[in-house]
Amino acid sequence: MVRAGLAALAITLAAPAAPETAWADTLVDNVQGQTIGADGHVERFKALLMDDAGVVKALFHEGEKTPKKGFQYRIDGKGRIMLPGLIDAHAHVMGTGFAALTLDLSETTSLADALEKIAAYAKAHPDRPWLIGGGWNQERWKLGRFPTAAELDAVVSDRPVWLERADGHANWGNSAALKAGGVTAATPAPSGGEIIRLADGSPAGVLVDNAKALVQSHVPPPTARDNDAAFALAQREFYRRGLTAVADMGTSMADWQTFRRAGDANTLYVRIMAYGAGIENTVAIGGPGPSPWLYADRLRLNGVKLYMDGALGSRGAWLKAPYHDRPDTRGLPNLTQTQLGNLMSRAAMDNFQIAVHAIGDEANAVLLGAMEDLAQTYKGDRRWRIEHAQVIDPADWPIAERVAKSVGLIASMQPVHQTSDRLMAEARLGPERLAGAYAWASAKAHGAVLAFGSDTPVELPDPWTGFAAAISRIDADGQPPLGWQPQERVGRETALAGYTADAAYAGFAEKRFGRLAPGLRADFIFVDTDPMTASPEAIRKTRVFETWVGGGKVWDADKPEGGAAGAEPVKK
Amino acid sequence: MVRAGLAALAITLAAPAAPETAWADTLVDNVQGQTIGADGHVERFKALLMDDAGVVKALFHEGEKTPKKGFQYRIDGKGRIMLPGLIDAHAHVMGTGFAALTLDLSETTSLADALEKIAAYAKAHPDRPWLIGGGWNQERWKLGRFPTAAELDAVVSDRPVWLERADGHANWGNSAALKAGGVTAATPAPSGGEIIRLADGSPAGVLVDNAKALVQSHVPPPTARDNDAAFALAQREFYRRGLTAVADMGTSMADWQTFRRAGDANTLYVRIMAYGAGIENTVAIGGPGPSPWLYADRLRLNGVKLYMDGALGSRGAWLKAPYHDRPDTRGLPNLTQTQLGNLMSRAAMDNFQIAVHAIGDEANAVLLGAMEDLAQTYKGDRRWRIEHAQVIDPADWPIAERVAKSVGLIASMQPVHQTSDRLMAEARLGPERLAGAYAWASAKAHGAVLAFGSDTPVELPDPWTGFAAAISRIDADGQPPLGWQPQERVGRETALAGYTADAAYAGFAEKRFGRLAPGLRADFIFVDTDPMTASPEAIRKTRVFETWVGGGKVWDADKPEGGAAGAEPVKK
Repeated sequence: MVRAGLAALAITLAAPAAPETAWADTLVDNVQGQTIGADGHVERFKALLMDDAGVVKALFHEGEKTPKKGFQYRIDGKGRIMLPGLIDAHAHVMGTGFAALTLDLSETTSLADALEKIAAYAKAHPDRPWLIGGGWNQERWKLGRFPTAAELDAVVSDRPVWLERADGHANWGNSAALKAGGVTAATPAPSGGEIIRLADGSPAGVLVDNAKALVQSHVPPPTARDNDAAFALAQREFYRRGLTAVADMGTSMADWQTFRRAGDANTLYVRIMAYGAGIENTVAIGGPGPSPWLYADRLRLNGVKLYMDGALGSRGAWLKAPYHDRPDTRGLPNLTQTQLGNLMSRAAMDNFQIAVHAIGDEANAVLLGAMEDLAQTYKGDRRWRIEHAQVIDPADWPIAERVAKSVGLIASMQPVHQTSDRLMAEARLGPERLAGAYAWASAKAHGAVLAFGSDTPVELPDPWTGFAAAISRIDADGQPPLGWQPQERVGRETALAGYTADAAYAGFAEKRFGRLAPGLRADFIFVDTDPMTASPEAIRKTRVFETWVGGGKVWDADKPEGGAAGAEPVKK
Repeated sequence: MVRAGLAALAITLAAPAAPETAWADTLVDNVQGQTIGADGHVERFKALLMDDAGVVKALFHEGEKTPKKGFQYRIDGKGRIMLPGLIDAHAHVMGTGFAALTLDLSETTSLADALEKIAAYAKAHPDRPWLIGGGWNQERWKLGRFPTAAELDAVVSDRPVWLERADGHANWGNSAALKAGGVTAATPAPSGGEIIRLADGSPAGVLVDNAKALVQSHVPPPTARDNDAAFALAQREFYRRGLTAVADMGTSMADWQTFRRAGDANTLYVRIMAYGAGIENTVAIGGPGPSPWLYADRLRLNGVKLYMDGALGSRGAWLKAPYHDRPDTRGLPNLTQTQLGNLMSRAAMDNFQIAVHAIGDEANAVLLGAMEDLAQTYKGDRRWRIEHAQVIDPADWPIAERVAKSVGLIASMQPVHQTSDRLMAEARLGPERLAGAYAWASAKAHGAVLAFGSDTPVELPDPWTGFAAAISRIDADGQPPLGWQPQERVGRETALAGYTADAAYAGFAEKRFGRLAPGLRADFIFVDTDPMTASPEAIRKTRVFETWVGGGKVWDADKPEGGAAGAEPVKK
């Protein structure tokens, strides 16, 4: 709080003499504020002063005087809880947007319900040439048969409708979709596929497995306008949940151009720390190195995203020993050790930060080994990231410790994966390997900085669910009641840091945002629940009243349709 | 000069009361200023006032009072001639940069001279992994033989040197280059190629025609750093000649990223109006439409560049009747009429401006026809551009007139091509078709707006040579003494407009730059020659003292090595 005095001095000087000052300050007071402080611990405050550029000038703490004048605007926090904007350290931004852009039928309870939703969606999107979506399940509808093209035609006949079944093994199309795919009574089913047919042999509307491609191959790829629409929706998915920054894990050139278009048009609300999808995209986007921070710290290409292995569910994760539930395989690496080393070296030589997906214990061991090797050549503050770091052999913690000490190590982990994956992980790994699974506390104890995220759209981009999981290892159904491998829980302070200060640090952004402190961007939220004291169940249900990025409001729960379009500047 | 009064008022108000004003004006006085005025005619002025953002606030004319105070800075024009910054309406920016980046041996007079230049170039570029260049000619050196790898090795042996002969039919490499290509005594010459060999059969250093590829295929493609270096040199080539804006005709995604990196790093000095190389690049860069003006009007993606045919010299231009000097061919189109129409339509529907290379009279006729068709669907102010418009059948002027009237037509022509091509054009076209060749005055008379450029690096990006050619149709050697097809000369005012106001108009930039007028960017140059009165020979030799872009100096002939790095802001 060294700088609070300075800020107060500035106010005193500026206050009476310069009502016309161009750089008007704003006071946010009457709040129960908390942020990670400069010392890494929670700091509580009652008011915050920011300048017209949306940068924090001072925090005011209990017992300190809140200024009465010298600022032009005042925001009454109404006694609410105020936190720094949260950060999702592992997101797929455009994937999140496209998931939000397409039609989700997973909650429909009957064919009539689904048709009603489809009709409404078609009406809401008159310009979209194809209507795409999924999540339907005729079993859930208790239909006793597949739905038909004719039923779809009755609600949308002017353009193709193409909807994936919940399990991904079948698609339901209307007549326009079947026509686009050239599917007629004369079309033979391809090997490994089936065309559901009416009595007269004409296609009924559902194509199974390999037959899906007959239509799928005609679905137009997303246009730049689709990308822009998806990105706008993705941002909304983030800021309405209190996220003001995300790391985008696998940015393509088209994704980057979408972000830049938003930046150029002043519609980039959520800060993006981008990691290029592979070296080629990274170099195409960044050129000789990471981009500068653009658009007042709203966009930067930080580095590269690589994949060491696959996922646990599909047994693509690369394990040291065979899968417990399929002893004939231990998964497979995506890269040889040499390839990994070459790619990491290529990135490191140009100061691109390295973020590598590693799930299995063998993948993590090989990656840590490569990091330790590389740290001989590329020194300094590198902050190499393991994305997921899902299963670590405890024998490998010493390597992690050495990497952490030499160049810095980030464990970019997704607490909600633990609760979602629990039963699957137990089946895949068996009892012996669980000690190193989703081992947040161990990772931290061995020197890694924990950066928390969601892996959206694989999971919802909901930091509150993640926060609750992080401190409890208990899922939304209360299972298991004492927490799964509870020794790997983290404290509330660590969880808050993982979603704020440390997630910013993981993206080299700690001098720009992630905490509320003088000199940092004024990214903050008002919420109804105190994550430092509330139960995990209550935290999961946290209501975000308002989200502010760089001193501008981008979300107001009282005007949910306004979204960022209804964002008010600081002035009020 | 309606706004001069307003500006003066602002000065009066601001002057005594606010010496601390944040937005300091700058007066440039004691100049012989001329610009194209709002009425399209030359406007003379003696002083110019600009604001701190580099925008012109007022011009002061003979008989008007120049303000004595109320501005913070004053630049003494020392009685010099002041013009708007010139615009090259048809440039290949990165090609210009790479031409400047590589080693040019075309002026060398002996092998020793060449080796000295190569050694100096190697020393000046220690980080470049390959040394690339060309222009050598052993005949000119009176060497009586090809030069050898050993001779190159004596000056550069640590990395490959690879130099193209002036005619492009042979390359000279050092031992490192031969090694990179795997060229040994055992290497057979490929069909259509020759490996010049020593007595013992080992390669001597020169590879002819198809043998060149043995090494050429190993030359590393340019890196992002190469692109940045080339772009910096390209900008220097422009601003040192008085060019403050260019149209880039065929921008790739990598080019665009290079321009953006410069913009993001505040090293984008010359304004670029970009035309994507084909639809794919255009859409990848612009997304749903032209980009906004970026970096205070220094960069915009305007539209798309397409190619209708080839060039006259190589008989790739598409003519209505056979070539005079090769009656078996009339050239070939690059696109069918349907393809052209589809591409133009694809661009027009998203409001991308269309710029199509057309050289031969058939190419121009088909293009004009396609434009007239398209104008039925895409109306409004479109300003479709013909790049080069080199040979027009006078019978087609009525179509041009209709296009010009309906959607706007730009004839983007390069005056220096006329003087460079004259003898070749006469040979290719024969006497009958010359009336429509390089027909600037006719294009203007039929409603096209003339935008002048250089086609750099095909020609030097020298607007003064072009200006001289435009008003004289006489080349640097004084040929032909009365001008070639002199009826197609343009007046000096038209020439100045073609390199300033109308070149800006051709890129939808007329409200931003291209003239010196209140509200437009303060892009200007000081020169030693008055293009409104000097002889063409004198204009060709114009010396550019200083170049200013957006109120900042980017070139000072007294500090040529400073370049833009030595650019001073307005403050002095």
